[in-house]
Amino acid sequence: MNESPNRMPPIITLLTDFGLRDSYVGTLKGVLLGICPAARIVDISHAIRARNVREAAFVLACAAPYFPPHTIHTVVVDPGVGGPRRAIAVRTRRHAVYVAPDNGVLTPALQNDEPDTIIHLCNPDYWRPEPGATFHGRDVFAPVAAHLALGAPLESFGPRLDAIVTLETHTPARLPDGTLEGAVQYVDHFGNAVTNIPAAGLPAHAPAHVRVEARPIGRVNRTYADVNPGEPVALIGSHGFLEIAVRDGNAAQTLGLDVGAVVRVGQ
Amino acid sequence: MNESPNRMPPIITLLTDFGLRDSYVGTLKGVLLGICPAARIVDISHAIRARNVREAAFVLACAAPYFPPHTIHTVVVDPGVGGPRRAIAVRTRRHAVYVAPDNGVLTPALQNDEPDTIIHLCNPDYWRPEPGATFHGRDVFAPVAAHLALGAPLESFGPRLDAIVTLETHTPARLPDGTLEGAVQYVDHFGNAVTNIPAAGLPAHAPAHVRVEARPIGRVNRTYADVNPGEPVALIGSHGFLEIAVRDGNAAQTLGLDVGAVVRVGQ
Amino acid sequence: MNESPNRMPPIITLLTDFGLRDSYVGTLKGVLLGICPAARIVDISHAIRARNVREAAFVLACAAPYFPPHTIHTVVVDPGVGGPRRAIAVRTRRHAVYVAPDNGVLTPALQNDEPDTIIHLCNPDYWRPEPGATFHGRDVFAPVAAHLALGAPLESFGPRLDAIVTLETHTPARLPDGTLEGAVQYVDHFGNAVTNIPAAGLPAHAPAHVRVEARPIGRVNRTYADVNPGEPVALIGSHGFLEIAVRDGNAAQTLGLDVGAVVRVGQ
Repeated sequence: MNESPNRMPPIITLLTDFGLRDSYVGTLKGVLLGICPAARIVDISHAIRARNVREAAFVLACAAPYFPPHTIHTVVVDPGVGGPRRAIAVRTRRHAVYVAPDNGVLTPALQNDEPDTIIHLCNPDYWRPEPGATFHGRDVFAPVAAHLALGAPLESFGPRLDAIVTLETHTPARLPDGTLEGAVQYVDHFGNAVTNIPAAGLPAHAPAHVRVEARPIGRVNRTYADVNPGEPVALIGSHGFLEIAVRDGNAAQTLGLDVGAVVRVGQ
Repeated sequence: MNESPNRMPPIITLLTDFGLRDSYVGTLKGVLLGICPAARIVDISHAIRARNVREAAFVLACAAPYFPPHTIHTVVVDPGVGGPRRAIAVRTRRHAVYVAPDNGVLTPALQNDEPDTIIHLCNPDYWRPEPGATFHGRDVFAPVAAHLALGAPLESFGPRLDAIVTLETHTPARLPDGTLEGAVQYVDHFGNAVTNIPAAGLPAHAPAHVRVEARPIGRVNRTYADVNPGEPVALIGSHGFLEIAVRDGNAAQTLGLDVGAVVRVGQ
Repeated sequence: MNESPNRMPPIITLLTDFGLRDSYVGTLKGVLLGICPAARIVDISHAIRARNVREAAFVLACAAPYFPPHTIHTVVVDPGVGGPRRAIAVRTRRHAVYVAPDNGVLTPALQNDEPDTIIHLCNPDYWRPEPGATFHGRDVFAPVAAHLALGAPLESFGPRLDAIVTLETHTPARLPDGTLEGAVQYVDHFGNAVTNIPAAGLPAHAPAHVRVEARPIGRVNRTYADVNPGEPVALIGSHGFLEIAVRDGNAAQTLGLDVGAVVRVGQ
């Protein structure tokens, strides 16, 4: 049934802003299993803030690289549902497949793993009959993901596209005095503030000093336990970006940080 | 092992008010897999408000129709646990199976898909030994669902029943001037207010005008994107009922809506 | 592939304090399925309060006994990540396997099911290459759990240990007048306050009277429905401990209870 080389059940991940209280996530899974009963369904998150495409894009780019090849990632953070935005599927060079609205939510994931083929999902043979205008997760994205998992060729879902919508990403700037200036791009459940400064951007040989807004955080450490409980610490987080944390605490609350806070690294 | 016609692993869904912090959901899954290791377990929701049978009933009725035949839906929203309420299993004409306390939680689901057989679950051979009086999810409902998934005949779980407890449902009224008067029956995670007015109840040819409490919302639109961001919109939601939303916003907060708010549709 | 006697897909459970919003849980599942595609992954909870080892320990001990033999329980509540704390795996007499940081989180689970073999996880062949210092769930615990699920012998993961870190547990005291004095050890999602007084510690023949802080709750009942709605009730909960609840209500809120509240049982 599944034509992926390893003959294992196909993996379909879900990333939505549906929350976990309503019927919507269960409905997606019912549709998926009705079409592809062998699918392995994995939740990445359903707690993306409502319509927050940027947050979904970051979470997707963090999780997707850890899944095996041929995983089908289904993203339904879709404020433009029912309007003119396209539905797309993208196969990448490392054999990931993404099914999503064309609203930029794939931008950072595709920076790590370039597109091989982009398809405009407009073949209704792979949709639920008479799709509504408000829940394309159920009527378009889940059926498409399930048919891909069954082995339908990507090219059969619609015509190729050359380009898709790109989310504007903010990259750190090098100031005249050599300081690197970036910003917090995500605050996690622990209150750790993830910046947009990649590990590779930090000075390799001299100790780097980190400031968040005006406050000095100290040098870049290795792990939370390198400082005393309750103290702030800068380190390279598990996603590969500079992160501001408080050991055994909540940095976002303690330091008053949110997405957009300015972070500077100097010597 | 499983005697369902398609020979696929049996699907067991879970719908509870247990929340996701405690050990209760994990315990249910351990019990299910201990009896039926091949079962596909799918969470519909564990975030039903504590003991809110009506909320569970709505979520179940929304999600269940999207699952394949022979799915076993297990509902544990059970304020009467340990008291005189019965435990039941219902097989429907479209081959869904429901396992639940007999407290009305199945009422709207069974309006869409009528019962074929109703069984009073009183055969302790299919329960955990020495069931307690406070957690029939673990001791009765999960073991029954797992044995059904293994292929045990429904009739072996206890005697047939002719009738079960029915939840009183509120249907829209037609006022003397032709206005249809209904009410909000559910508010979802996005703040969309789902009414009890079905699409079929709306006038087919003339534009319908919607009012929520005293406030005019305008005509029935097709999707959120039909109005400007921040504006209220009435549309037919994915569940087939008239829904009041705010584009890119939260209608329940903006309009001060909750379950029971009066909604009128006139011309 | 899996050498467990029943030849069923191996079960891997997850218990973390990661929350459900970020990419972390999805990342664990991607790593697990990349190594052991046949694994059945079951979430016990991801909503343990941040770094609360004691809460995780209670939830684990409640849920683990209900899983089939050979289940691999993976616990990542790990405030000491990157510091000197060890990573361990424990196989028990009843054939459960635990993979966890050595911080006491296994203490109550191992009181019910004694260790047979304890291994210090220090063989990097079973880790992700170049593990970081902040996310051993992804780099150490998940890969180890997946290789165990594939059938790698426990002894190959590192040397045996004779002892592991033990969480100090508080047991009820018998006062000179015969009163049993314990404390609330956990408050669940419903507001039920679970004490550390086991059912076996209660007087078998005489009615026991329960007091929480100074407030009398009455005798030990059988279930919630034994009192009127809104009234407090003491009963033996599903975990086997004395529990203080309010019928159709929230005992923790109504009675002002939290972990540590003193509970006395006398005659």
